[in-house]
Amino acid sequence: MEERTEIESLGEFGLINHLTQNNETKQASTLLSIGDDAAVIDNFGRQTVISTDMLVEGIHFDLMYTPLKHLGYKAVAVNLSDLCAMMATPTHITLSIAFSNRFSVEALDEFYEGVYAACEKYNVDLIGGDTCSSQKGFIISVTAIGEVTNNQFVTRSGAQPNDLICVSGDLGAAYLGLQLLEREKRIYLENPNVQPNLQMKEHVIGRILKPEPRLDIVEWLQKNEIVPTSMMDISDGLSSDMLHICKQSNVGCIIYDEKLPIHNESKEMAMEFNLSGTSCALNGGEDYELLFTIPQSAYEKILTSEQISIIGYVTPIEEGAHLLTRQGNKHKLTAQGWNAF
Amino acid sequence: MEERTEIESLGEFGLINHLTQNNETKQASTLLSIGDDAAVIDNFGRQTVISTDMLVEGIHFDLMYTPLKHLGYKAVAVNLSDLCAMMATPTHITLSIAFSNRFSVEALDEFYEGVYAACEKYNVDLIGGDTCSSQKGFIISVTAIGEVTNNQFVTRSGAQPNDLICVSGDLGAAYLGLQLLEREKRIYLENPNVQPNLQMKEHVIGRILKPEPRLDIVEWLQKNEIVPTSMMDISDGLSSDMLHICKQSNVGCIIYDEKLPIHNESKEMAMEFNLSGTSCALNGGEDYELLFTIPQSAYEKILTSEQISIIGYVTPIEEGAHLLTRQGNKHKLTAQGWNAF
Repeated sequence: MEERTEIESLGEFGLINHLTQNNETKQASTLLSIGDDAAVIDNFGRQTVISTDMLVEGIHFDLMYTPLKHLGYKAVAVNLSDLCAMMATPTHITLSIAFSNRFSVEALDEFYEGVYAACEKYNVDLIGGDTCSSQKGFIISVTAIGEVTNNQFVTRSGAQPNDLICVSGDLGAAYLGLQLLEREKRIYLENPNVQPNLQMKEHVIGRILKPEPRLDIVEWLQKNEIVPTSMMDISDGLSSDMLHICKQSNVGCIIYDEKLPIHNESKEMAMEFNLSGTSCALNGGEDYELLFTIPQSAYEKILTSEQISIIGYVTPIEEGAHLLTRQGNKHKLTAQGWNAF
Repeated sequence: MEERTEIESLGEFGLINHLTQNNETKQASTLLSIGDDAAVIDNFGRQTVISTDMLVEGIHFDLMYTPLKHLGYKAVAVNLSDLCAMMATPTHITLSIAFSNRFSVEALDEFYEGVYAACEKYNVDLIGGDTCSSQKGFIISVTAIGEVTNNQFVTRSGAQPNDLICVSGDLGAAYLGLQLLEREKRIYLENPNVQPNLQMKEHVIGRILKPEPRLDIVEWLQKNEIVPTSMMDISDGLSSDMLHICKQSNVGCIIYDEKLPIHNESKEMAMEFNLSGTSCALNGGEDYELLFTIPQSAYEKILTSEQISIIGYVTPIEEGAHLLTRQGNKHKLTAQGWNAF
């Protein structure tokens, strides 16, 4: 009998490792391959940074509460976020979509409106793609291309003990927005006459439906000549993503519970759902904020940004990766983030 | 009531035009955007060429008769073919896949074996991608990246009256291979004890299951310093694709029926299926041969390649696009190629 290993048994990252463990690069221009937010190709000193993402209806989004225009915007935004996580400037995208015949031309127009809005906002050109039928649902694949000058790209593997750990914006809001939309969907399905009340919840809803790549943070760091030692964007949750940096940089970390930036609206929503705000910030995915480490020497400069929080520091690998609570308790960080399988 | 326009009413190319008609490029580095085989980005004199394709189970392939290894190979090959159609040299790819839980790790391993085999053969690095779940079927998205020196890329829009029209290899075989596989599938479904007899049909089967990008032709043209005035790869069928060149170059054409390169095995298969070989060559898709135009001055040089056939010549646009039969009859070329909707 043929062997059959279920994909669940490996998990997402295990599967990627398994499929790419023997992948060898042959081109001298390949500076960075699989395993970071994006790949880097050299063009005589100036570098092209490339990232790609697939979004599948029913897995990554629910069209019942995701307006198509927002979806188009988000499909572009999450890819640009990967380039930002390399400290690259996005320049171009390609977009391929497959859709079943339940979609009309008007529906696709709406989707493209969002795509073009994101391209406009981030000064990116849509330069190619493919459109085709699917047997079921809507599938989106975006490849984003950007540039960095003179080896200024930042990977996940350069964090050093004593570096400060920083995040942009606030955490956990996208996850709470998703909980809210899922709740309103259930209520609506039970009683279609009840209209959802989403007032005063703009922040959390906006974060799940219309995330923004933090190009502003990249530009601020560049302007202030701060070179992060490592960086990634938070798509799976702070814990999971911080553990990627720890693993790839061969270091440990301490994160302070009290330093986690959580929006007031998120705190209220967390209470409403009987959730811990800290837990939402640690394990909620899709925030698309930047997580990065900087040398202590950049401390004073970082303080001048209201958009960046210092949440902890890097330790030697032997000390492990921990959350330190207000009460002084140490909890091991675990990857409870989103798993696509 | 909201308006609803069915996608079928526009067709594949109509839909692409509709969705991209207002697409404006903003980046100075965008030399060529949507509308050719690939896009071109400038990097200070050396250019990056980028193409992307999506393959959907049940639409583009049938896993009942497509071995996963071949599918992996083909997914890469058809994208490299788009780069060849720009006279570019492929260097890198990204690969995203979505698959339902009926796929095992072993099945994905087989698929990746084919991907790596194509990368190995064409000296291309796999540098990134995404793996995720799908609700149904297997979806593949590949983006291919290549390079051309010093503005040497060839678009679809440079054909001039009196240029010679050339194709590489032979035409119609992939279509006939597909007919054969579909017939054997029907027979098998009716009676699972009948084993398909595919002996002596290696050429047509090979052409549909394992197409090769014609990088050898690109290299031969470069070595012989022949610069095509226009070029594309034949994915939808010669008629349909020649009409693209005519439209984008603002010219007409004459194609000679008797000059169409058709493999002997294809001729036999066509007879077996009561099809006209000419029709298969004109309208059968997925040959992935190169279709290009050259100035008359390159005539002598082209004759020295056994892999290239001269099949006609470019005319002023007023003369239209026609096939000239052995009997001297003129037939208007029509796009009967594959339509994904």
